[in-house]
Amino acid sequence: MNAEIIAIGSELLLGETIDTNSAYLARHLAAIGINLFRKTVVGDNEERIASVISEALDRADLLICTGGLGPTIDDMTRESIARATGRPLEFHQHLLDQIEARFRSFGRTMSPSNRQQAFVPQGARIVENPRGTAPSFIVEDVRGTVVVLPGVPSEMRYLWENAIMPYLRNERGQTGVILVRTIHATGLGESVIGEMLADLMLAENPTLGISAKRAQYELRIGAKADDPAVAEALADAAEATIRE
Amino acid sequence: MNAEIIAIGSELLLGETIDTNSAYLARHLAAIGINLFRKTVVGDNEERIASVISEALDRADLLICTGGLGPTIDDMTRESIARATGRPLEFHQHLLDQIEARFRSFGRTMSPSNRQQAFVPQGARIVENPRGTAPSFIVEDVRGTVVVLPGVPSEMRYLWENAIMPYLRNERGQTGVILVRTIHATGLGESVIGEMLADLMLAENPTLGISAKRAQYELRIGAKADDPAVAEALADAAEATIRE
Repeated sequence: MNAEIIAIGSELLLGETIDTNSAYLARHLAAIGINLFRKTVVGDNEERIASVISEALDRADLLICTGGLGPTIDDMTRESIARATGRPLEFHQHLLDQIEARFRSFGRTMSPSNRQQAFVPQGARIVENPRGTAPSFIVEDVRGTVVVLPGVPSEMRYLWENAIMPYLRNERGQTGVILVRTIHATGLGESVIGEMLADLMLAENPTLGISAKRAQYELRIGAKADDPAVAEALADAAEATIRE
Repeated sequence: MNAEIIAIGSELLLGETIDTNSAYLARHLAAIGINLFRKTVVGDNEERIASVISEALDRADLLICTGGLGPTIDDMTRESIARATGRPLEFHQHLLDQIEARFRSFGRTMSPSNRQQAFVPQGARIVENPRGTAPSFIVEDVRGTVVVLPGVPSEMRYLWENAIMPYLRNERGQTGVILVRTIHATGLGESVIGEMLADLMLAENPTLGISAKRAQYELRIGAKADDPAVAEALADAAEATIRE
């Protein structure tokens, strides 16, 4: 299964907020053996978000979107996904009831604009969000699956662990792991190491990448297998070759 | 001028490295008045990098790419940009001489694989990199301008400040500023505030966005103008309205 991550929010394009959600999701996709081919950040603009989603559906099996599920008019993820997948938004009374109950539990009255959070694209599977007011949802489209999570990191992580990861493992049969091991090195030089390890760098599994970081560099082994023990063995073998 | 940022490196897709370059560039593009519409992260794969660049050239005037300029075989940015723009790579002896001199100054011998760093796409403008071995370059293509910077943050920032920003200001006539001001707020609630400020949120300049952050939320004003004083005045007026 090949995935892309789409982070939605103009604050990410102004450099005011560092997108930590995407790094979290990247690590957790690897942990269940899903290849991640692209991450995209797009601002709060319905047309641009819909384009990003539609293009990504032409490439990937699974899109994980974060952000833009709030109650204000700059929250456009619901509309954009409806547009990209051709599924009109549908109102769910039980979602509105839950949102209202959440406000009551805080001793507050729900605003009229929270009503838009009770709409999801037609046929979407609703993922209830006990950590916030924004319900999450999954659209299983013919072109691919779109998972939509809130942008608030604590809510996003809770829903990933308690709903999305179990869904991918149990209902979509996703097995496996991509084990990432990083070796920090100095001395010699990136180009010398790169020449010595060229064979490993051309291999498909495990993969070996080298990144320069000022005076040192990182050797990064990525071993993919259905069985974690097999991934470990692949990584061990690559690491032994490198350490030689 | 509308821009996109493209960060290149498989380590960013494994969640092992947080992409701080893109947030830096996002802030600095805003500081010189350039709209940023999309950020993309792609791994070390020539075909996928070339696709990302080619698609982005169909949308944006300016692409800022970072990473993948090293000497190892997983460094594919040069080849990918050559492919996306249809400009073959050309060898520059003076670049190789500079790289060699840099190694000598460290008391080291240059590796054969560093030779690939002396190639840039045909017609590219070379931006010398006194902080590292990877030369940077700018391709002024008919479809848009591609600026290519190393992924090592200290080198990237040095070249942005000393070469790319001056190029955009002085040679491309880029003027202006997008001033970003953030107001942290609690109380009321995101939806209530959103309803009260709906008029401001529909305005084009300054823009107003709201992001929820656990128990609080941020109101983000983005004021764009050629003259920094005008941007300040726009932001002041919006802030006064909000504080009312």
